[in-house]
Amino acid sequence: MNAVGALLRPRSVAVVGASADAGKMTGRPVAYLQKHGFEGEIWPVNPRAETIAGLRCYPDVAALPGAPDAAIVLLGPDRAEAAVRDLAARGCRAAIVLASGYGEANEEGGRRQQALKAAAGNMRLLGPNTIGLVNLTDGIMLSATGALEVGELPAGRISVVSQSGGILGSLLSRAADRGIGFAKLVSTGNEADLDSTDLIEHLIDDAATDVIAVYMEGLRRPEAFKRAARRAAALGKPIVIYKVGRSESGARSATSHTGALAGADRVYDAMFRQLGVIRAESFTDLLDIPAALVTGRRMAGGRVAILTSTGGAGTLLADNCGLGGIEVPPPDDATTERLATLLNEDQAAIGRNPVDVTLAGLQPELFRGAITALLESPGYDAVVVVIGSSALARPDIVAGAIVECQGRSEKPVLAYVSPHAPHLVRLLNEKGIPAFATPESCATLLRALRRPAVPPVPAETPADEGVLAGLPSGNLNEAESKALFARFGVPVTREHAAADEAEAAAAAARLGGEVVLKILSRAIAHKSDIGGVRVGLTAAQVPDACSAMLESLRRAGAPVPEGFLVQERIRGGVEMILGFHRDPQLGPVILLGAGGVAAELFQDTTLRLLPIARDDAEAMVDELKAARLLRGYRGAPPADIDALVDAVMAFAAMAGAAGDRLLEAEINPLFVLPEGQGARAVDGLAVLR
Amino acid sequence: MNAVGALLRPRSVAVVGASADAGKMTGRPVAYLQKHGFEGEIWPVNPRAETIAGLRCYPDVAALPGAPDAAIVLLGPDRAEAAVRDLAARGCRAAIVLASGYGEANEEGGRRQQALKAAAGNMRLLGPNTIGLVNLTDGIMLSATGALEVGELPAGRISVVSQSGGILGSLLSRAADRGIGFAKLVSTGNEADLDSTDLIEHLIDDAATDVIAVYMEGLRRPEAFKRAARRAAALGKPIVIYKVGRSESGARSATSHTGALAGADRVYDAMFRQLGVIRAESFTDLLDIPAALVTGRRMAGGRVAILTSTGGAGTLLADNCGLGGIEVPPPDDATTERLATLLNEDQAAIGRNPVDVTLAGLQPELFRGAITALLESPGYDAVVVVIGSSALARPDIVAGAIVECQGRSEKPVLAYVSPHAPHLVRLLNEKGIPAFATPESCATLLRALRRPAVPPVPAETPADEGVLAGLPSGNLNEAESKALFARFGVPVTREHAAADEAEAAAAAARLGGEVVLKILSRAIAHKSDIGGVRVGLTAAQVPDACSAMLESLRRAGAPVPEGFLVQERIRGGVEMILGFHRDPQLGPVILLGAGGVAAELFQDTTLRLLPIARDDAEAMVDELKAARLLRGYRGAPPADIDALVDAVMAFAAMAGAAGDRLLEAEINPLFVLPEGQGARAVDGLAVLR
Repeated sequence: MNAVGALLRPRSVAVVGASADAGKMTGRPVAYLQKHGFEGEIWPVNPRAETIAGLRCYPDVAALPGAPDAAIVLLGPDRAEAAVRDLAARGCRAAIVLASGYGEANEEGGRRQQALKAAAGNMRLLGPNTIGLVNLTDGIMLSATGALEVGELPAGRISVVSQSGGILGSLLSRAADRGIGFAKLVSTGNEADLDSTDLIEHLIDDAATDVIAVYMEGLRRPEAFKRAARRAAALGKPIVIYKVGRSESGARSATSHTGALAGADRVYDAMFRQLGVIRAESFTDLLDIPAALVTGRRMAGGRVAILTSTGGAGTLLADNCGLGGIEVPPPDDATTERLATLLNEDQAAIGRNPVDVTLAGLQPELFRGAITALLESPGYDAVVVVIGSSALARPDIVAGAIVECQGRSEKPVLAYVSPHAPHLVRLLNEKGIPAFATPESCATLLRALRRPAVPPVPAETPADEGVLAGLPSGNLNEAESKALFARFGVPVTREHAAADEAEAAAAAARLGGEVVLKILSRAIAHKSDIGGVRVGLTAAQVPDACSAMLESLRRAGAPVPEGFLVQERIRGGVEMILGFHRDPQLGPVILLGAGGVAAELFQDTTLRLLPIARDDAEAMVDELKAARLLRGYRGAPPADIDALVDAVMAFAAMAGAAGDRLLEAEINPLFVLPEGQGARAVDGLAVLR
Repeated sequence: MNAVGALLRPRSVAVVGASADAGKMTGRPVAYLQKHGFEGEIWPVNPRAETIAGLRCYPDVAALPGAPDAAIVLLGPDRAEAAVRDLAARGCRAAIVLASGYGEANEEGGRRQQALKAAAGNMRLLGPNTIGLVNLTDGIMLSATGALEVGELPAGRISVVSQSGGILGSLLSRAADRGIGFAKLVSTGNEADLDSTDLIEHLIDDAATDVIAVYMEGLRRPEAFKRAARRAAALGKPIVIYKVGRSESGARSATSHTGALAGADRVYDAMFRQLGVIRAESFTDLLDIPAALVTGRRMAGGRVAILTSTGGAGTLLADNCGLGGIEVPPPDDATTERLATLLNEDQAAIGRNPVDVTLAGLQPELFRGAITALLESPGYDAVVVVIGSSALARPDIVAGAIVECQGRSEKPVLAYVSPHAPHLVRLLNEKGIPAFATPESCATLLRALRRPAVPPVPAETPADEGVLAGLPSGNLNEAESKALFARFGVPVTREHAAADEAEAAAAAARLGGEVVLKILSRAIAHKSDIGGVRVGLTAAQVPDACSAMLESLRRAGAPVPEGFLVQERIRGGVEMILGFHRDPQLGPVILLGAGGVAAELFQDTTLRLLPIARDDAEAMVDELKAARLLRGYRGAPPADIDALVDAVMAFAAMAGAAGDRLLEAEINPLFVLPEGQGARAVDGLAVLR
């Protein structure tokens, strides 16, 4: 058993700073361990007590009868460090430090946290600033959370990793009310040592955990997280994450709360999508989605039947399903006929979805018959049963009928409880029917049940130092940038760098036809702003244009350029933008978007972390509103989407090979020509370290 | 007292079809009336009973001892019509029909509903397919909803109008759990007679109602609703509406549920905004927003302080506030100092927002001091207090401190309850502190508290039949359309209609410079698709271009055009689109959007119902992403926004004056030139009935 295993399932626990007063926060852990029937050894440590809760109490860590598997340190930040050092010396595997006043507080706290980590040596540390952990699989509580005062904590197969102790407590009490059971819950706090990823890694291998729910403020080891998430996806163990930091206020607050670094939220979003991690959009979803996933049932398609005895609530669900991209199609003819026979109503009233059974909903045999007819219909991938006020009087019958019908099908069956009826929600969840009380959750839950099992795993491009050899730090000029891109197969305009007017004219003549003339300069990023771009010149016009350009630069006080760039003129494509940057937290990112004004104004862009698979590149194109432009808008010819996807893959390969020296890169615009004619990078920039 | 008043507060009630068995649905109304202490006369009607619940029972309506103020009809659809006819004959003011199987069911039900309405004559009717009404102000229940089985129903100053009876029941039980009190709740069902607007109108004048919450599937009398909503806004009585039909599935379901017609949801959205009606985006908000508004407190600005003893939940709120456009700025220096002194912590840890008081949050005097410091800070417009698990042990102290502090300030104080703690939510709401349990609600609530009191009331443009006199039905051609627009002050391109090549050439010469040549045809909507537009011609080029154009039309098999249109060429403006159409349900609508590809692809458009005030037109411009283009994007000169607003107002005046014959109109593109140079309608179309 590794140290995390020892922490979650210790055979012996030292409780350092335990109080004999179970009413005090420091009295709780021993009380909780006993109350939930911990079968191992409990060793309270307190120099001022002989016994605590009937257990022998030890004056200090050195006096313990053995090396504890785990310890929970209840001392303040002034004394916790010494206790941690003593525990490490005594051979303890892992210790939990609850105290706050460390990295989250101020600079001094940050130094205190480093000292704490150093004192732990090879012993693993959970916290500080954590509420500890709760193992309901084995009845082991190493926590002081008041949420454990709740009477009944159902055990289940969902595990929770939360950077915040308060959120852990909130989830624990909210889930208990709703009959949703947990396996393990761990609050990682400041993550001086063990972090969310360590816990996720452990829980992926935990046989008692089927779904992992995570409250995340920021990720400390993104590469380890990615590996863990890919492994979870391959094993079919879903990870559901509620991540804060979607707004600036939230990101700032997260940073000061547990000192986690925040990457850009959109990059997190992209990363989760790439890894098959499900992102919970609302806090409620962080419970609702795992409760739906833990049944193991999945939707084959996106069509749901809503069975209701209360029209308003059915409408509410149908509306939210439609908003969330879930179809609510009417029943097929055979199902309509079956329902009409069963309910003795005319088919016009029955051939709708939501299927409104009004009073028949109260007759168990009809109710069962209707659920069964919908579950057996090939037109539906899931059934949601709406429970109205009229069902409250006989919750057992309603729940019993739903459970029975579910047992005869493999499709997901969910229940929406319209009135306030916590007992019914609890009853249903306990019986394995995901029951939710917010109509907005409906589409979210159903979408989560449709997730593909395993996302594509891209090939890594090994970095190759030679790629950037000889190139200077800072901005490359357009010719250098595009030459770099072209080496990896990015299609660029035919073009020639020219030192002076004569060379430029010769280059134009070689290209033939109308050309584009640009100044070539590492120092000037926005060429067109200072008259550095001329479009549609003949070779004969080039020398004068060169002179005018130099004059314009002189007047603007711009630095002397390296020369000129003469390139073919591209017409008639769809303008895109392709970019690369490094997220400070999550690493290299590729961006694809609609070009020109649209990119900035309408933010029609999509991101992926590198590396990417070809499937990812194709999905990126599909996610853009501009995809309609590419497919041939208003009678225009379809653009060469294959060539665009090739260009994205080539650009990604370039970024991977270039390695850490490449800070930023951009192709803007990238023209995607009509089908069969390819794409062309018309302008480009790379920035090196 | 009018009939609606008599219905909500009758002195005598006939219960037609009452059962002596209180366990049956038909036994409930008499039992509920008695249980809640109805002080008027209760007259059960049932030929098979002598007494019901100790009351004399009448064999039929004719035998009643007087004309009842109100009646509740519990019979099925087969017998309800006769009962309604008898009640009308007996002089009853208003009757409630609970039965379903009417317009919502099928065509036959629709006919049955018309007969029911006819049978009522001058008597007003609530329903059919309604659950009735609940008047908690006066303890009068005219309903059979199972939700009334709930033990305690707190009275309050929020009233509910719901088309769905099930939703009424759901709100009733959910609110009771949360300590949110109601004044009146009415379910309007199929609205054969009385509709949502009738009830809203009544509740605006109800002295016991401060906020009106509405569950809406569709609006039957939009003009009456608009008048009512404007009156409510002028009186400062907020209306909060949760409207379904945001998706196609929901709209279809709403139509079949209560037979309500659905207008386009975006038009509802625009209408609500124009009327100052607050739209609840989630079902939870339909309770949370009224509960916050009913305190009467409002935010002067958009800055909130979050006080928390649990960092995670504070972060959760800050994140959601930021997403919802509410600022969470750090405290100013004076407030930071005050908090640091109070909490005895260093200023670095305290000068943040959320203000994390961790353990100090459990000491009532410090907790009160912190709330007071934040409420008294000029940097905040509201304070949200986060309640964590640690507060659960002493709910009275926490609630007491918050209530006490609120009493000394006029700013809103709200509470977010992080763990599952219904007793605490209830306690706070009952004491006048809006308490909510979903973090997503936070920004929504705060935004609702910022609503301006009274939206601008636009002047009506009276319709003038003369405006369209002489114009044919169907599409007008471009010249006719723009001439119509120009009469109301819409700036259009200088242009001349020409019958043939020679006239066209002469017109081009008169305009001077480069011109645009178009075919002029009522029959051809998309001129450019068939070679009917040429840009940048000199007068000399016009005759040949005309011939080529006619030839191109002939080849395309297009009808013979009326002639040609020769117009000045406009360059260098921002391309917009300005449109008009009639929503089938809500009436005339004006649309402003970014022009060209952006309008369709990125849907950068905004709507208003007509008439509009100039403030509305200005707000429309601001709502567009393209507003950045208009203000001068990437160094481009700012566009003439005043001229654009003038054009919108002129177009709106044209649509108002044109009256019902105008079906559609569009200016596309409308070029907005640089500041001081105005705007120009470059192409336009009007469609007449």
